[in-house]
Amino acid sequence: MKTNRLIYLPLGGAGEIGMNCYVYGYGPEDRERLIVVDLGVTFPDMDTTPGVDLIMADIAWLEARLDRIEAIFITHAHEDHIGALSHLWPKLKKKVYARRFTAAIGRLKFEEYGLPLDVINTVEARPAVVEAGPFQVQFVPVAHSIPESSALIIDTPAGRIVHSGDFKLDETPIVGEGWNPALFREIAAERPVKALMCDSTNVFSLHAGRSESTLADPLHGLIANAGGMVVATTFASNVARLKTLAEAGRAAGRSVCLLGRAMQRMVKVATETGVLTGMPPTIPSEAALEVPRGNLMLIVTGSQGERRAATAQLSRGRYLGLELKEGDLFLFSSKIIPGNERDVLRIMNSFSEMGVDVVDDTNGRYHVSGHANRPDLEAVHEILKPAMLIPMHGEHRHLREHARLATLRGIAAEIATNGMMMDLTGGAPEVAEFIETGRIYLDGSVLIGARDGVVRDRIRMALNGHTLVTVILDEQDEPLGDAWVELMGLPEVGKRGSGLAEMMETEVTEFLGTAPAKVLRDDDKLEEAIRRIVRQVGVEEIGKKPEVTVVVSRLTEG
Amino acid sequence: MKTNRLIYLPLGGAGEIGMNCYVYGYGPEDRERLIVVDLGVTFPDMDTTPGVDLIMADIAWLEARLDRIEAIFITHAHEDHIGALSHLWPKLKKKVYARRFTAAIGRLKFEEYGLPLDVINTVEARPAVVEAGPFQVQFVPVAHSIPESSALIIDTPAGRIVHSGDFKLDETPIVGEGWNPALFREIAAERPVKALMCDSTNVFSLHAGRSESTLADPLHGLIANAGGMVVATTFASNVARLKTLAEAGRAAGRSVCLLGRAMQRMVKVATETGVLTGMPPTIPSEAALEVPRGNLMLIVTGSQGERRAATAQLSRGRYLGLELKEGDLFLFSSKIIPGNERDVLRIMNSFSEMGVDVVDDTNGRYHVSGHANRPDLEAVHEILKPAMLIPMHGEHRHLREHARLATLRGIAAEIATNGMMMDLTGGAPEVAEFIETGRIYLDGSVLIGARDGVVRDRIRMALNGHTLVTVILDEQDEPLGDAWVELMGLPEVGKRGSGLAEMMETEVTEFLGTAPAKVLRDDDKLEEAIRRIVRQVGVEEIGKKPEVTVVVSRLTEG
Repeated sequence: MKTNRLIYLPLGGAGEIGMNCYVYGYGPEDRERLIVVDLGVTFPDMDTTPGVDLIMADIAWLEARLDRIEAIFITHAHEDHIGALSHLWPKLKKKVYARRFTAAIGRLKFEEYGLPLDVINTVEARPAVVEAGPFQVQFVPVAHSIPESSALIIDTPAGRIVHSGDFKLDETPIVGEGWNPALFREIAAERPVKALMCDSTNVFSLHAGRSESTLADPLHGLIANAGGMVVATTFASNVARLKTLAEAGRAAGRSVCLLGRAMQRMVKVATETGVLTGMPPTIPSEAALEVPRGNLMLIVTGSQGERRAATAQLSRGRYLGLELKEGDLFLFSSKIIPGNERDVLRIMNSFSEMGVDVVDDTNGRYHVSGHANRPDLEAVHEILKPAMLIPMHGEHRHLREHARLATLRGIAAEIATNGMMMDLTGGAPEVAEFIETGRIYLDGSVLIGARDGVVRDRIRMALNGHTLVTVILDEQDEPLGDAWVELMGLPEVGKRGSGLAEMMETEVTEFLGTAPAKVLRDDDKLEEAIRRIVRQVGVEEIGKKPEVTVVVSRLTEG
Repeated sequence: MKTNRLIYLPLGGAGEIGMNCYVYGYGPEDRERLIVVDLGVTFPDMDTTPGVDLIMADIAWLEARLDRIEAIFITHAHEDHIGALSHLWPKLKKKVYARRFTAAIGRLKFEEYGLPLDVINTVEARPAVVEAGPFQVQFVPVAHSIPESSALIIDTPAGRIVHSGDFKLDETPIVGEGWNPALFREIAAERPVKALMCDSTNVFSLHAGRSESTLADPLHGLIANAGGMVVATTFASNVARLKTLAEAGRAAGRSVCLLGRAMQRMVKVATETGVLTGMPPTIPSEAALEVPRGNLMLIVTGSQGERRAATAQLSRGRYLGLELKEGDLFLFSSKIIPGNERDVLRIMNSFSEMGVDVVDDTNGRYHVSGHANRPDLEAVHEILKPAMLIPMHGEHRHLREHARLATLRGIAAEIATNGMMMDLTGGAPEVAEFIETGRIYLDGSVLIGARDGVVRDRIRMALNGHTLVTVILDEQDEPLGDAWVELMGLPEVGKRGSGLAEMMETEVTEFLGTAPAKVLRDDDKLEEAIRRIVRQVGVEEIGKKPEVTVVVSRLTEG
């Protein structure tokens, strides 16, 4: 009989920020019992994933091992950790464990998709333990930028693992439990930490992280000095920030209105689950219309420039009857996630055109990050003293830097990117296997593979335009009438001033008149020849090779 | 007879960073004689301009007034100031004036497009004067991040204008003339400055700008301590930086190799025109292959992640036989221009995967900006004491902030965005007229209008996919055979597991069998009905409304 081993396999989130999905296993090789930690999404962009709605880890490896999966654990309710749950759970159908707030958000998603709510189990924080096959799992409260974020203590016969989740060392986080160093010291003292899988997001931030509570004074000051309407945006799930903003608004004598479904839902769930207390009263948007601008504060969704969120809508004009004007203040109490710069700056400029004063995070006064900075990570290394460390939740450069830091401290650190199964049984992590991984896209209402070619074709059409050619052949394979060309995403006129479609039609029709019978008989040959002609005209006339779809219709009856 | 007036009209660059194009006019209303300052481009992105090669200002207003244009002046050779010259000059065919280095770059572009070289005139710096109708124009050397950047003194019967060009207050710029405050004091003393049109790029940078020369020590230190191969990238046109980098490499005992056509061309032109002296010797890439890594330094193009430039090529593997390895150093001696984050970070992560140490501008040690910061702008306001100021070269938020600063100082400042013609004749700028402006795209080899719908259709295909439906009707308008559907950029299978194209074909064919004759007879009605059916199937099966092109072929002969 084979000996048991302890494995770790990231399927998403290691080599990127987003789409978190980690697997732990314990047991004989290839028969390990498995648990899944987090099922998150990442967001599409026009450059690489046009038209796609959400991106998630390809869990084919898990689907092929359904009978070995014990449970799914969700560390917190950010979309990059829970966003794929409702899309991928039907493929796994395993019990889900999360703390109260996270579970409530999960159930809302399940409700939306008609999935069973009772598979999502609410777990209390440590010392409560979830037994999942060979694993005993505890949720340990950490501070982050959403309530009830948790690290997981994963006890196995081969040792104790700490899966950090997303965290910062904030002892005064306004909402929810703060970072408690004594608790983590106790965890390390109770049983040595064999391996720490650790958030790497802010490893390049050299100063110690700042507490959420340090924002109260600057925000109160800013809002107290504002004249017109005040509008603030932040991440909808940052309930602590919403509370601080609302308090600052109230302190300045303003009625506070929350705009945006995601934000209202977060406040509702946080209040109902008891994690948010003392939130100042807010008014609905209809009531806001009656409040003088100088006495009104809106807190709105869309800090990343999302097209349909309240911030973008306000930047385009009236939204729910509300409108920004000269002298109003718009505060981005948020940072721009890399890749969103163009969208956010476009919005800032629209506000500037309206005469609105835009305040952002440039000087770091109105936003703090939810992740541990470099000195904070080092403090955690020191407290937990893990034998091994595998950095997670980072692009490759973050993982590499984090591994370097840990190695300097004498910890056995290895980089494991998506698909690298690590064997943790011994004294240092070792690569056990490379798993084929990838991404799947939620595209409208269906899931498609990243390699299906669908998105590649969209990108090609966007770059090159699309030409459609239809030709009709009779029973004798003779062309019936002229070729017909339709253009989409291409200029109508070529550089010699003639119609591009007409020139293509002429060339194709001419070719059909002289093409040998063996080409006219063979759809593939015919299509290829026509495609070549059309591209040639494209290159000559517009300096571009369009995508070409050829439809050959053959009449088979009189 | 009407009185003369002095006008200013930005056609590009005011409300954006890029695509600079400014017009000045003097004379009776609607008969002003005109000069054009700069003809630049801006760069496309997938979000808004997929497939486009370059973006430039729509100069239709100038084309309608060709007989009134005296000349074109180019302040410096950055693409956002000179990049459209070879594309738009054929529409204007006016004399071009620039200083030696800029003119040489311009002539290279003209050569490439077969345009006459002698229309580009080399002008010496002030006190040389170009007479252009009612204008006397002088080029005044300023420091920037390319050699021979110039402010323009534009003297008119209505007063003196200073057009700042792109500049920074660098008295020790390594290459070319430094900022000379005495010269600008002299200019203001000689004749009061009526209006200053001023670079606004860095108005949000609160500290005084730093000199190019401050980089020498940090760069020497970094490179002296490197072990493996050193590769540095920066903007190809920053000849001073290239020199500093090459000197640092040589000082560390390294042979230096320039990779990338743009960079080699810049150094060649700068050397030939005499603006660059003392550039250390460099070796060709073939020779670099023979040099031990620890004695080699590459200076390469592609600091913004451009796909075909040397940096991106090296991040994908071998380039011209050269390859990065574990322990090498890659330096981004540059900043990321907003919007390029995704591309640059992707490259940094690829290098990280290779084990290469990536150093960037995070701590501000290895790059300085080429634009004046806020205190620098204030110093210029103080030196020139203009009666009016119109901010340019900035997004709206930059223009607004710059105008605010000038107003605080008692200067009559107004924001003029693209298309706002300002009358400068009186004591303060006044809006004279709103001109219809826009953008034109170089798309392959043709120019298309931004509003032609071509790019809009590309974006739609990228977001929604494209469905092609062909149906054939006989002489009696009866369907001949079934409808045929081709998909591009769409999943093959719908959520019920059947082929999407087949389902669409079935629905359309069924419709054709029952459609009333008046619909079958009418192409528009028929296409609209088919489009609706196809979209409906899309919504039901894949949750998406595809773009639909319908081709109805009617047989008119037996």
